[in-house]
Amino acid sequence: MKNEKIPYKIYLSEDELPRAWYNLRSDMKQKPAPLLNPGTGQPLSAEELSAVFCRELVEQELDDDTALIPIPTEIRDFYKMYRPSPLVRAYCLEQALDTPARIYYKFEGNNTSGSHKLNSAIAQAYYAKRQGLRGVTTETGAGQWGTALSMACAYLGLDCKVFMVKVSYEQKPFRREVMRTYGAQVTPSPSNTTQVGRKILAEFPDTTGSLGCAISEAVEAAAAEPGYRYVLGSVLNQVLLHQSVIGLEAKAALDKYGVKPDLIIGCAGGGSNLGGLIAPFMGEKLRGEQDYRILAVEPASCPSFTRGVFAYDFCDTGMICPLAKMYTLGSSFIPSANHAGGLRFHGMSPVLSQLYHDGFLEARAVEQRSVFAAAEQFARCEGILPAPESAHAIRAAIDEALACRETGEEKTILFGLTGTGYFDLVAYQKYNDGQMSDTIPTDEELARSIEALPKVPEI
Amino acid sequence: MKNEKIPYKIYLSEDELPRAWYNLRSDMKQKPAPLLNPGTGQPLSAEELSAVFCRELVEQELDDDTALIPIPTEIRDFYKMYRPSPLVRAYCLEQALDTPARIYYKFEGNNTSGSHKLNSAIAQAYYAKRQGLRGVTTETGAGQWGTALSMACAYLGLDCKVFMVKVSYEQKPFRREVMRTYGAQVTPSPSNTTQVGRKILAEFPDTTGSLGCAISEAVEAAAAEPGYRYVLGSVLNQVLLHQSVIGLEAKAALDKYGVKPDLIIGCAGGGSNLGGLIAPFMGEKLRGEQDYRILAVEPASCPSFTRGVFAYDFCDTGMICPLAKMYTLGSSFIPSANHAGGLRFHGMSPVLSQLYHDGFLEARAVEQRSVFAAAEQFARCEGILPAPESAHAIRAAIDEALACRETGEEKTILFGLTGTGYFDLVAYQKYNDGQMSDTIPTDEELARSIEALPKVPEI
Repeated sequence: MKNEKIPYKIYLSEDELPRAWYNLRSDMKQKPAPLLNPGTGQPLSAEELSAVFCRELVEQELDDDTALIPIPTEIRDFYKMYRPSPLVRAYCLEQALDTPARIYYKFEGNNTSGSHKLNSAIAQAYYAKRQGLRGVTTETGAGQWGTALSMACAYLGLDCKVFMVKVSYEQKPFRREVMRTYGAQVTPSPSNTTQVGRKILAEFPDTTGSLGCAISEAVEAAAAEPGYRYVLGSVLNQVLLHQSVIGLEAKAALDKYGVKPDLIIGCAGGGSNLGGLIAPFMGEKLRGEQDYRILAVEPASCPSFTRGVFAYDFCDTGMICPLAKMYTLGSSFIPSANHAGGLRFHGMSPVLSQLYHDGFLEARAVEQRSVFAAAEQFARCEGILPAPESAHAIRAAIDEALACRETGEEKTILFGLTGTGYFDLVAYQKYNDGQMSDTIPTDEELARSIEALPKVPEI
Repeated sequence: MKNEKIPYKIYLSEDELPRAWYNLRSDMKQKPAPLLNPGTGQPLSAEELSAVFCRELVEQELDDDTALIPIPTEIRDFYKMYRPSPLVRAYCLEQALDTPARIYYKFEGNNTSGSHKLNSAIAQAYYAKRQGLRGVTTETGAGQWGTALSMACAYLGLDCKVFMVKVSYEQKPFRREVMRTYGAQVTPSPSNTTQVGRKILAEFPDTTGSLGCAISEAVEAAAAEPGYRYVLGSVLNQVLLHQSVIGLEAKAALDKYGVKPDLIIGCAGGGSNLGGLIAPFMGEKLRGEQDYRILAVEPASCPSFTRGVFAYDFCDTGMICPLAKMYTLGSSFIPSANHAGGLRFHGMSPVLSQLYHDGFLEARAVEQRSVFAAAEQFARCEGILPAPESAHAIRAAIDEALACRETGEEKTILFGLTGTGYFDLVAYQKYNDGQMSDTIPTDEELARSIEALPKVPEI
């Protein structure tokens, strides 16, 4: 066995839990472009944003300069219930691959939300509580974010209203029941509890809903009821800030053993996990202190980095949200029913988009069946049943490790294992039965949805 | 906050992972009664047992004297993938209960089997592999044990054939798919792949199966195919031995901070978790070194300790397995459809039965709705969604902590959180919808099944 001194799992002590989040934007020379008001085409002010988001979260959203933002004690106390999360050396997988590469993964699935989403959910719920709000609203598709927010709200005694895409509400009843167990009010979307929901239901009575519609309902519900704000689990700068705790811990754990990764890999949907995992490493890279290869892995069915354009676009398919400058396939793009629900987003975090545009980040698209083959191989070696989203990163890590077997390079690979697949067994069943398919969009399809991008004057 | 110095989670380092299992029987003055051959009524010899079980496991089963049995390096390496497991201080629950009690729990759910079952699965699979066997067979009801065994066999490259009670196979497709993902062959029982299965199907074509039938099929399948043995996830002495790793770690973690529990609580089905958690504490109690209250919690719908008798009985409803002397409701007893599938066993570990008989152990039965109320309260405070089985221990821990609020006693309570409830959301949904019921057996029902106990001469 290589590196005998390095344990299977490197746990930090609670004292070593980061005391501040790291704001990657502070080290970016080229800052991410601001969110625009879709009506005026002008950057959104703090006042405008505060009508929808909590005040302190707006400050974090707009702060491109402060490097370290202290984590409040109450949030650190909550983090201690499931953090520091383990950094694991994948000894068994290395052996199975017969690779000279060293593979590490940062595992974020050891909490009931089953993913890293809890890192930002507790932060957003905490600031809502501190502002004296009664509750928060949000949307959820696959359900990880809704679960995480429900858990955070239950802990703080805050109301939580989740609009769950109707098809998920019906097909993923277990996610729904977890949220209800944590006290959340879960409404299938579209619903007749909002104007936009009633409008859509009148027009399309048989619709099974969409994330775009659920966002619209959640925003309306927050605006309609005093003491409520809307919260979002990815894409936003504030979310990447909170998720930096993943990368800070991973780096601290590796530093203990003097390990420098050559390559850092994360799956990318809206960018919350990838942005968090790479934050401190990318900071060193931006400051010219250390070089790392950093790789975003996305589904071939929803390839925003590898086949999208860098432009202003709506974050929601309903086209009511602010415009963000990002790699996008167009907000009208409907990806095929890829089972990695968390990666079915047409756009990408503006921070990561800017970094990719500036050449600090690579991207790769992988197909679904090869992703599940990697998930199965990983599960059998390492014990953990990964979420389909996480398995995108596993696929790339395995491919890179196999390349090392050819070249003999002893690369050190770090990837983010964002969560567990306990609620994704319909997908595993399809894979086990040889009935899994994947649909890659044609150039014509992408051209159509990209053609439909909003026309916004560059500022 | 009380005891500021004690972290939320006490993790041991990998070096502190126990190097030997502790055999509780070595400290019992009154040893558990031997297994009997149901045909002859005589104690089963090592030879007889070796036809069904692996050789080294038979030795462990029969060894009442050796205190410490070394854990082979290969098993310790596997343990390191998910152990040492955290010992958690339930600060948030204490606060919610406003109790002066200090509550700790040992959490065994941080692995894909979702429970402590993996501790014995890897040991049993390892000895099978070392004996040069090709594979193992087993039965599974709720699915935790089958999942754990599938994971262990995938890791070691051993065939794994699981007979899954047909009703579970159909109603818990997700558990089935996890096992298949780990490469296990999962057969709904009764099946036409065994003589006993075919016989039952001919007699009762519409049967949905039972654990007793699945055991019979698994035993027959192991005997029919060269290079196979049968393995079992609870009740047996060897299983309690392997599970002692839970208690050894818990005690080592508490010892680090000089904490002595006043009360140790575990749920009890076949006894694998409770026997493991309490092992080193009970050892001190048996040797007269330290006193602890030790409490077994069982469902009121299947109350083997609190309403059963201490007698020889079959371990399976099919009445083909050895006879064990234990607290039992009679092997013909059919418990109501309590959602804690892992606790629906008519009997109890012979080791724990002897200890209960001799007054070293208390027992309490709790009703299902109160169990789910405790589960929900725990989830909202501590984040973790508990398995219904584990929630029996939570119920008792909460009740004891509330009693401390009345008396002002600062008791230290340790309980076993055996696993997570991700595959139990049908039960949570019933609870959330107010549709959960429980059926307590009548005295007449119990008298009938106890009346039917086999007549065995006491030896």
